[in-house]
Amino acid sequence: MRVLGLDPGLALTGYGVIQELSSGELRLLEYGVIATAADLPTAERLLEIARQFDILLQRHTPDVVAIEELFFARNVTTALVVGEARGVLILGAARAGVPIVEYRPMEIKQAVAGYGKAPKTQVQEMVRMLLNLDHIPQPDDAADGVAVAVCHIHHRRLATLLKEAEG
Amino acid sequence: MRVLGLDPGLALTGYGVIQELSSGELRLLEYGVIATAADLPTAERLLEIARQFDILLQRHTPDVVAIEELFFARNVTTALVVGEARGVLILGAARAGVPIVEYRPMEIKQAVAGYGKAPKTQVQEMVRMLLNLDHIPQPDDAADGVAVAVCHIHHRRLATLLKEAEG
Repeated sequence: MRVLGLDPGLALTGYGVIQELSSGELRLLEYGVIATAADLPTAERLLEIARQFDILLQRHTPDVVAIEELFFARNVTTALVVGEARGVLILGAARAGVPIVEYRPMEIKQAVAGYGKAPKTQVQEMVRMLLNLDHIPQPDDAADGVAVAVCHIHHRRLATLLKEAEG
Repeated sequence: MRVLGLDPGLALTGYGVIQELSSGELRLLEYGVIATAADLPTAERLLEIARQFDILLQRHTPDVVAIEELFFARNVTTALVVGEARGVLILGAARAGVPIVEYRPMEIKQAVAGYGKAPKTQVQEMVRMLLNLDHIPQPDDAADGVAVAVCHIHHRRLATLLKEAEG
């Protein structure tokens, strides 16, 4: 099971790729940000995001893409711009035939840190421990991308447990 | 000069393709909406928008794509969803190598009806007259797409006039 987590944005899209080993152990394969320059036209920035994301999908062939759902935004303009980046990323995954799952920030905090209102630093520290890392991934956007990927794996495990309990 | 105008949306993306003849006359080549079903996942809806838009670009090979810039939105969720559709459309044009120009609703009203606060019906009636149509294009989203295309041609003419006046 390989999950690519995304925290979308026009300037910075954070990502993290996690492999779940058969032992249940999680391994962070790669993390980083797709960055685009503010002085480029939107069309070129979106092209660049699509290009880099296609390369990531080809390199890791994830089983699923987990993406952070923007739930609150400072304002309508921010939401519109994040939406443009999201649209390009969702389209890229869909074209590659990779399923996409969306998680709200609260679900991510709940799944990673066990508490939906956990502060950002606590979520990041949990991610570090769960993945057995020396340091918290940097920058923040990359750490958020990694957290979304961890969230998906935890969600899936919980769903499996609940199913077993019912059966 | 052939212009493809767009009024983006996840459920309905209105479009209009206008040809400017050497006589200066404008001819509406096609108009309509790209519609996606609300019960489909976002990824499939965005795939469908991208697919239909690619077909439009191939059929008409426009010199430019003119797109309505969302300036006000009811709320953040609306803006996010419109942004997703916009991102996919801008990416499609960029990949096809077609330049993209954005216009705010007020600029469109100004360029088409001569008044930035003109009511929607007046803009639509002007579009009808300028393109020598029997009826106003339907639905509204298609009429809005056509209006963006007209706006671009008028903007360009004004820019040419100003240049000549300066020279």
